[in-house]
Amino acid sequence: MARPVVTAPRARAVRTADTLVMLSTPAVDVWVATASPDGAPYLVPVSLAWVDERVVIAVEKNSPTAGNLLASGRARLGVGPTRDVTMLDVVLERSVGVDDDAHLGTAYSAQADWDPRGLSGYVFLVLRPERVQAWREANEIAGRTLMRDGRWLS
Amino acid sequence: MARPVVTAPRARAVRTADTLVMLSTPAVDVWVATASPDGAPYLVPVSLAWVDERVVIAVEKNSPTAGNLLASGRARLGVGPTRDVTMLDVVLERSVGVDDDAHLGTAYSAQADWDPRGLSGYVFLVLRPERVQAWREANEIAGRTLMRDGRWLS
Repeated sequence: MARPVVTAPRARAVRTADTLVMLSTPAVDVWVATASPDGAPYLVPVSLAWVDERVVIAVEKNSPTAGNLLASGRARLGVGPTRDVTMLDVVLERSVGVDDDAHLGTAYSAQADWDPRGLSGYVFLVLRPERVQAWREANEIAGRTLMRDGRWLS
Repeated sequence: MARPVVTAPRARAVRTADTLVMLSTPAVDVWVATASPDGAPYLVPVSLAWVDERVVIAVEKNSPTAGNLLASGRARLGVGPTRDVTMLDVVLERSVGVDDDAHLGTAYSAQADWDPRGLSGYVFLVLRPERVQAWREANEIAGRTLMRDGRWLS
Protein backbone atom coordinates (compact mmCIF):
# COMPACT_ATOMS: atom_id res chain seq x y z
CA MET A 1 0.00 0.00 0.00
CA ALA A 2 2.96 2.30 0.52
CA ARG A 3 4.38 2.09 -2.95
CA PRO A 4 5.94 4.97 -4.86
CA VAL A 5 3.40 7.44 -6.15
CA VAL A 6 3.73 7.90 -9.88
CA THR A 7 0.76 10.00 -10.95
CA ALA A 8 -1.89 12.15 -9.37
CA PRO A 9 -4.95 10.30 -8.09
CA ARG A 10 -7.83 10.13 -10.52
CA ALA A 11 -11.12 11.79 -9.72
CA ARG A 12 -14.06 9.48 -9.03
CA ALA A 13 -15.74 10.20 -12.35
CA VAL A 14 -12.55 9.29 -14.18
CA ARG A 15 -12.17 6.07 -12.22
CA THR A 16 -15.76 5.13 -12.92
CA ALA A 17 -15.31 5.75 -16.63
CA ASP A 18 -12.04 3.76 -16.62
CA THR A 19 -13.76 0.94 -14.75
CA LEU A 20 -16.60 0.72 -17.24
CA VAL A 21 -14.10 0.61 -20.09
CA MET A 22 -12.18 -2.17 -18.34
CA LEU A 23 -15.30 -4.22 -17.68
CA SER A 24 -16.30 -3.89 -21.33
CA THR A 25 -12.91 -4.85 -22.76
CA PRO A 26 -12.95 -7.79 -25.16
CA ALA A 27 -11.46 -10.98 -23.67
CA VAL A 28 -10.99 -9.43 -20.25
CA ASP A 29 -10.62 -11.83 -17.33
CA VAL A 30 -11.74 -11.65 -13.72
CA TRP A 31 -10.40 -13.20 -10.55
CA VAL A 32 -13.34 -14.76 -8.73
CA ALA A 33 -12.97 -15.31 -4.98
CA THR A 34 -15.60 -17.39 -3.23
CA ALA A 35 -15.85 -19.32 0.02
CA SER A 36 -17.22 -22.77 0.66
CA PRO A 37 -19.84 -23.37 3.35
CA ASP A 38 -17.08 -24.61 5.66
CA GLY A 39 -14.98 -21.49 5.06
CA ALA A 40 -12.42 -22.65 2.51
CA PRO A 41 -11.39 -19.82 0.18
CA TYR A 42 -11.43 -20.48 -3.54
CA LEU A 43 -10.02 -18.37 -6.35
CA VAL A 44 -9.83 -18.80 -10.08
CA PRO A 45 -9.48 -16.53 -13.13
CA VAL A 46 -12.19 -16.75 -15.79
CA SER A 47 -13.46 -14.68 -18.70
CA LEU A 48 -16.16 -12.12 -18.03
CA ALA A 49 -18.78 -10.22 -19.92
CA TRP A 50 -20.36 -6.98 -18.72
CA VAL A 51 -24.03 -7.25 -19.65
CA ASP A 52 -26.74 -4.88 -18.46
CA GLU A 53 -24.61 -3.69 -15.52
CA ARG A 54 -23.94 -7.27 -14.42
CA VAL A 55 -20.77 -9.36 -14.45
CA VAL A 56 -21.48 -12.59 -16.30
CA ILE A 57 -19.19 -15.60 -16.06
CA ALA A 58 -19.54 -19.07 -17.56
CA VAL A 59 -18.38 -21.99 -15.45
CA GLU A 60 -19.07 -25.66 -15.00
CA LYS A 61 -22.03 -26.13 -12.71
CA ASN A 62 -20.06 -28.65 -10.65
CA SER A 63 -17.03 -26.36 -10.24
CA PRO A 64 -16.07 -25.02 -6.80
CA THR A 65 -16.86 -21.49 -7.98
CA ALA A 66 -20.41 -22.37 -9.01
CA GLY A 67 -20.99 -24.50 -5.94
CA ASN A 68 -19.80 -21.78 -3.59
CA LEU A 69 -21.81 -19.07 -5.33
CA LEU A 70 -24.97 -21.16 -5.43
CA ALA A 71 -24.58 -21.91 -1.73
CA SER A 72 -23.56 -18.49 -0.40
CA GLY A 73 -24.70 -16.09 -3.10
CA ARG A 74 -21.55 -14.01 -2.68
CA ALA A 75 -18.24 -13.41 -4.41
CA ARG A 76 -15.52 -10.79 -4.53
CA LEU A 77 -14.02 -10.06 -7.92
CA GLY A 78 -10.79 -8.49 -9.08
CA VAL A 79 -10.40 -7.15 -12.62
CA GLY A 80 -7.31 -5.66 -14.19
CA PRO A 81 -3.65 -5.87 -13.32
CA THR A 82 -2.73 -5.63 -9.64
CA ARG A 83 -1.77 -1.97 -9.96
CA ASP A 84 -4.85 -0.88 -11.85
CA VAL A 85 -7.55 -2.86 -10.14
CA THR A 86 -11.28 -2.82 -9.94
CA MET A 87 -12.69 -4.79 -7.03
CA LEU A 88 -16.35 -5.79 -7.02
CA ASP A 89 -18.37 -7.30 -4.20
CA VAL A 90 -21.20 -9.09 -5.95
CA VAL A 91 -24.26 -11.17 -5.23
CA LEU A 92 -25.55 -13.98 -7.39
CA GLU A 93 -28.63 -12.73 -9.20
CA ARG A 94 -29.33 -15.91 -11.15
CA SER A 95 -27.83 -18.99 -12.70
CA VAL A 96 -28.94 -20.18 -16.12
CA GLY A 97 -27.82 -22.91 -18.49
CA VAL A 98 -25.60 -21.56 -21.24
CA ASP A 99 -28.14 -22.52 -23.90
CA ASP A 100 -31.16 -21.26 -22.03
CA ASP A 101 -30.83 -17.48 -22.43
CA ALA A 102 -30.15 -16.27 -25.95
CA HIS A 103 -29.47 -12.66 -24.92
CA LEU A 104 -26.83 -13.70 -22.40
CA GLY A 105 -25.28 -16.22 -24.74
CA THR A 106 -24.93 -13.69 -27.54
CA ALA A 107 -23.58 -10.97 -25.28
CA TYR A 108 -21.15 -13.24 -23.48
CA SER A 109 -19.66 -14.78 -26.60
CA ALA A 110 -19.40 -11.35 -28.24
CA GLN A 111 -17.14 -10.05 -25.46
CA ALA A 112 -15.30 -13.17 -24.31
CA ASP A 113 -12.90 -14.95 -26.61
CA TRP A 114 -14.63 -18.29 -26.28
CA ASP A 115 -18.20 -19.51 -26.56
CA PRO A 116 -19.56 -21.90 -23.94
CA ARG A 117 -22.85 -22.49 -25.73
CA GLY A 118 -23.36 -26.15 -26.50
CA LEU A 119 -21.08 -27.29 -23.67
CA SER A 120 -22.90 -29.66 -21.38
CA GLY A 121 -22.87 -28.73 -17.71
CA TYR A 122 -21.90 -25.08 -18.13
CA VAL A 123 -23.93 -22.27 -16.61
CA PHE A 124 -23.91 -18.52 -16.79
CA LEU A 125 -23.73 -16.92 -13.37
CA VAL A 126 -25.15 -13.40 -13.39
CA LEU A 127 -23.49 -11.33 -10.67
CA ARG A 128 -24.88 -8.02 -9.47
CA PRO A 129 -22.33 -5.57 -8.04
CA GLU A 130 -23.12 -4.11 -4.65
CA ARG A 131 -19.81 -2.37 -4.08
CA VAL A 132 -17.17 -1.34 -6.61
CA GLN A 133 -13.74 0.04 -5.80
CA ALA A 134 -10.87 1.03 -8.07
CA TRP A 135 -7.31 2.11 -7.43
CA ARG A 136 -3.89 2.07 -9.01
CA GLU A 137 -1.33 2.99 -6.38
CA ALA A 138 -1.29 3.92 -2.72
CA ASN A 139 -2.36 7.48 -3.42
CA GLU A 140 -5.67 6.19 -4.81
CA ILE A 141 -6.72 4.22 -1.74
CA ALA A 142 -8.62 7.27 -0.57
CA GLY A 143 -11.64 7.72 -2.80
CA ARG A 144 -11.55 4.15 -4.08
CA THR A 145 -15.25 3.44 -3.61
CA LEU A 146 -17.25 4.01 -6.81
CA MET A 147 -20.43 2.08 -5.99
CA ARG A 148 -22.05 1.48 -2.63
CA ASP A 149 -25.22 -0.52 -1.93
CA GLY A 150 -25.61 -1.12 -5.64
CA ARG A 151 -25.55 2.56 -6.62
CA TRP A 152 -22.82 4.37 -8.49
CA LEU A 153 -21.64 7.36 -6.49
CA SER A 154 -21.80 10.66 -8.29
CA MET B 1 -11.34 -22.85 -20.24
CA ALA B 2 -12.09 -23.53 -23.90
CA ARG B 3 -9.96 -20.76 -25.31
CA PRO B 4 -7.89 -20.98 -28.47
CA VAL B 5 -4.74 -23.01 -28.00
CA VAL B 6 -1.69 -21.01 -28.94
CA THR B 7 1.31 -23.10 -27.90
CA ALA B 8 2.06 -26.66 -26.85
CA PRO B 9 1.55 -27.39 -23.15
CA ARG B 10 4.66 -27.08 -21.03
CA ALA B 11 6.10 -30.08 -19.27
CA ARG B 12 5.82 -30.13 -15.49
CA ALA B 13 9.51 -29.38 -14.95
CA VAL B 14 9.23 -26.32 -17.17
CA ARG B 15 6.14 -25.08 -15.38
CA THR B 16 7.83 -25.54 -12.02
CA ALA B 17 10.87 -23.60 -13.18
CA ASP B 18 8.66 -20.87 -14.64
CA THR B 19 6.70 -20.73 -11.39
CA LEU B 20 9.81 -20.30 -9.27
CA VAL B 21 10.99 -17.51 -11.56
CA MET B 22 7.60 -15.80 -11.28
CA LEU B 23 7.53 -16.08 -7.48
CA SER B 24 11.02 -14.58 -7.29
CA THR B 25 10.32 -11.67 -9.62
CA PRO B 26 11.04 -8.23 -8.15
CA ALA B 27 7.87 -6.27 -7.32
CA VAL B 28 5.57 -9.15 -8.21
CA ASP B 29 2.06 -9.04 -6.76
CA VAL B 30 -0.27 -11.74 -5.54
CA TRP B 31 -4.04 -11.96 -5.33
CA VAL B 32 -4.92 -13.18 -1.84
CA ALA B 33 -8.32 -14.85 -1.39
CA THR B 34 -9.48 -15.52 2.15
CA ALA B 35 -12.78 -16.21 3.87
CA SER B 36 -14.17 -14.74 7.05
CA PRO B 37 -15.47 -17.00 9.82
CA ASP B 38 -19.01 -16.33 8.59
CA GLY B 39 -18.11 -17.27 5.02
CA ALA B 40 -17.64 -13.90 3.35
CA PRO B 41 -15.01 -14.08 0.59
CA TYR B 42 -12.28 -11.45 0.58
CA LEU B 43 -9.75 -10.68 -2.13
CA VAL B 44 -7.00 -8.11 -2.46
CA PRO B 45 -3.76 -7.76 -4.42
CA VAL B 46 -0.56 -7.20 -2.43
CA SER B 47 3.18 -7.46 -2.97
CA LEU B 48 4.85 -10.76 -2.22
CA ALA B 49 8.30 -12.07 -1.45
CA TRP B 50 9.35 -15.68 -1.93
CA VAL B 51 11.53 -16.49 1.05
CA ASP B 52 12.74 -19.97 1.99
CA GLU B 53 9.96 -21.63 -0.07
CA ARG B 54 7.31 -19.52 1.60
CA VAL B 55 5.10 -16.71 0.29
CA VAL B 56 5.53 -13.68 2.54
CA ILE B 57 3.10 -10.78 2.49
CA ALA B 58 2.98 -7.65 4.62
CA VAL B 59 -0.43 -6.36 5.65
CA GLU B 60 -2.04 -4.38 8.40
CA LYS B 61 -2.82 -6.64 11.31
CA ASN B 62 -6.36 -5.24 11.44
CA SER B 63 -7.02 -5.80 7.72
CA PRO B 64 -9.61 -8.35 6.57
CA THR B 65 -6.85 -10.44 5.00
CA ALA B 66 -4.87 -10.72 8.24
CA GLY B 67 -7.99 -11.27 10.32
CA ASN B 68 -9.24 -14.04 8.05
CA LEU B 69 -5.86 -15.75 7.88
CA LEU B 70 -5.32 -15.56 11.60
CA ALA B 71 -8.78 -17.04 12.16
CA SER B 72 -8.83 -19.77 9.52
CA GLY B 73 -5.17 -20.34 8.71
CA ARG B 74 -5.97 -20.68 5.01
CA ALA B 75 -5.74 -18.70 1.79
CA ARG B 76 -5.70 -19.31 -1.92
CA LEU B 77 -3.29 -17.20 -3.94
CA GLY B 78 -3.07 -16.24 -7.60
CA VAL B 79 0.16 -14.95 -9.11
CA GLY B 80 0.75 -13.76 -12.65
CA PRO B 81 -1.60 -12.58 -15.35
CA THR B 82 -4.83 -14.50 -15.81
CA ARG B 83 -3.47 -16.45 -18.75
CA ASP B 84 -0.18 -17.41 -17.15
CA VAL B 85 -1.24 -18.17 -13.61
CA THR B 86 0.20 -19.88 -10.63
CA MET B 87 -2.36 -20.81 -8.00
CA LEU B 88 -1.24 -21.67 -4.48
CA ASP B 89 -3.28 -23.12 -1.65
CA VAL B 90 -1.44 -22.05 1.47
CA VAL B 91 -1.59 -22.32 5.23
CA LEU B 92 -0.48 -19.64 7.65
CA GLU B 93 2.80 -20.75 9.18
CA ARG B 94 3.33 -17.71 11.36
CA SER B 95 2.63 -14.01 11.79
CA VAL B 96 5.35 -11.66 12.97
CA GLY B 97 5.61 -7.90 13.39
CA VAL B 98 7.46 -6.31 10.51
CA ASP B 99 10.27 -5.15 12.79
CA ASP B 100 10.59 -8.40 14.71
CA ASP B 101 12.34 -10.64 12.17
CA ALA B 102 15.39 -9.13 10.50
CA HIS B 103 15.79 -11.95 7.97
CA LEU B 104 12.21 -11.60 6.75
CA GLY B 105 12.40 -7.83 6.72
CA THR B 106 15.54 -7.79 4.62
CA ALA B 107 14.31 -10.45 2.21
CA TYR B 108 10.88 -8.89 1.80
CA SER B 109 12.10 -5.38 1.15
CA ALA B 110 14.75 -6.70 -1.27
CA GLN B 111 12.10 -8.26 -3.51
CA ALA B 112 9.09 -6.00 -3.01
CA ASP B 113 9.19 -2.40 -4.17
CA TRP B 114 8.23 -1.03 -0.78
CA ASP B 115 9.46 -1.51 2.75
CA PRO B 116 6.91 -1.96 5.53
CA ARG B 117 9.49 -1.89 8.31
CA GLY B 118 8.80 0.88 10.77
CA LEU B 119 5.09 0.98 9.95
CA SER B 120 3.01 0.54 13.07
CA GLY B 121 0.46 -2.26 12.94
CA TYR B 122 1.91 -4.13 9.96
CA VAL B 123 2.74 -7.81 10.12
CA PHE B 124 4.46 -10.31 7.89
CA LEU B 125 2.31 -13.34 7.21
CA VAL B 126 4.40 -16.37 6.28
CA LEU B 127 2.38 -18.68 4.06
CA ARG B 128 3.40 -22.27 3.38
CA PRO B 129 2.21 -23.74 0.07
CA GLU B 130 0.44 -27.06 0.25
CA ARG B 131 -0.70 -27.20 -3.37
CA VAL B 132 0.66 -25.33 -6.37
CA GLN B 133 -0.86 -25.31 -9.83
CA ALA B 134 0.15 -23.47 -12.99
CA TRP B 135 -1.43 -23.08 -16.39
CA ARG B 136 -1.62 -20.69 -19.28
CA GLU B 137 -4.42 -21.80 -21.58
CA ALA B 138 -7.00 -24.57 -21.74
CA ASN B 139 -4.47 -27.07 -23.05
CA GLU B 140 -2.51 -26.76 -19.81
CA ILE B 141 -5.36 -27.63 -17.44
CA ALA B 142 -4.20 -31.23 -17.56
CA GLY B 143 -0.95 -31.51 -15.67
CA ARG B 144 -1.46 -28.27 -13.79
CA THR B 145 -0.55 -29.59 -10.36
CA LEU B 146 3.10 -28.95 -9.46
CA MET B 147 2.98 -29.44 -5.69
CA ARG B 148 0.71 -31.66 -3.64
CA ASP B 149 0.65 -32.03 0.15
CA GLY B 150 3.54 -29.59 0.39
CA ARG B 151 5.86 -31.56 -1.92
CA TRP B 152 6.96 -30.57 -5.40
CA LEU B 153 6.11 -33.33 -7.86
CA SER B 154 9.01 -34.64 -9.88
